[in-house]
Amino acid sequence: MAPAIRYFEDFHAGQVIGVGTVAVSEEDIIAFARQYDPQPMHVDPAAAANTIYGGLIASGWHTVSLFMRMLVENLVAKTVSLGSPGVDELRWPLPVRPKDRLSGQMEVLETRVSSSRPTMGIVRWRGEVRNQDGQLVMSLLGTNFFGCRPA
Amino acid sequence: MAPAIRYFEDFHAGQVIGVGTVAVSEEDIIAFARQYDPQPMHVDPAAAANTIYGGLIASGWHTVSLFMRMLVENLVAKTVSLGSPGVDELRWPLPVRPKDRLSGQMEVLETRVSSSRPTMGIVRWRGEVRNQDGQLVMSLLGTNFFGCRPA
Repeated sequence: MAPAIRYFEDFHAGQVIGVGTVAVSEEDIIAFARQYDPQPMHVDPAAAANTIYGGLIASGWHTVSLFMRMLVENLVAKTVSLGSPGVDELRWPLPVRPKDRLSGQMEVLETRVSSSRPTMGIVRWRGEVRNQDGQLVMSLLGTNFFGCRPA
Repeated sequence: MAPAIRYFEDFHAGQVIGVGTVAVSEEDIIAFARQYDPQPMHVDPAAAANTIYGGLIASGWHTVSLFMRMLVENLVAKTVSLGSPGVDELRWPLPVRPKDRLSGQMEVLETRVSSSRPTMGIVRWRGEVRNQDGQLVMSLLGTNFFGCRPA
């Protein structure tokens, strides 16, 4: 049985959708940062201990990329996704550290049909990532395009 | 001779700083997306050809991660960097495609000393990434913390 596909019409303001959890290891933090954000606090545990962060922390771009993977695997892959023009108010209020377990969710804020492309809908949402202690480590306001249900 | 280190005091509103260029291959696009954004338009050239994008395009998170690497290697590594609380108005106005060559720059918008931590300064800036045809493919408003020059 094929999984049900979500169309634009399946999103409603107020919906809160959990998108799963992911464990973060020191190896993952260092591997991402070596490639994309090679600052001492992200790649060098000894140097990181001497920063204001007091130890190794994940690149914020790593955290948002991990959130994206959860979002794709647990939600977007089951939709008719048509991409995104951007995000707003991306925040990292607390560091992500080795051995953290992160949980992601999205809350739908607003939905409307595209005026320029009426077979497409626009969904505005707020994403949140929390650690194993329930502390908010990342938030953002996202905008995504989804295909409308065929008539 | 050690390279000169930039402190907070070395940033001024109106400065425009080039942060280098990077070539994007189909292999890079697919490798990043398999790990962090496994949507058909980012991982499957044949499926991507049938989307509104007409071919494989990079994950927006890949583009911003490549920009971050340029920013770190060519600027942040030569500063006393103390991290970032977040970014605003991250936009991907045009897709990034295989064989694109991207150039990054930052323009300093505003600088001020932190009121809560007077040995630290706050720099607000606009980042831009353009392709080989000069087209804007990404922009964002960034905020970064830098250490002040020792007295």
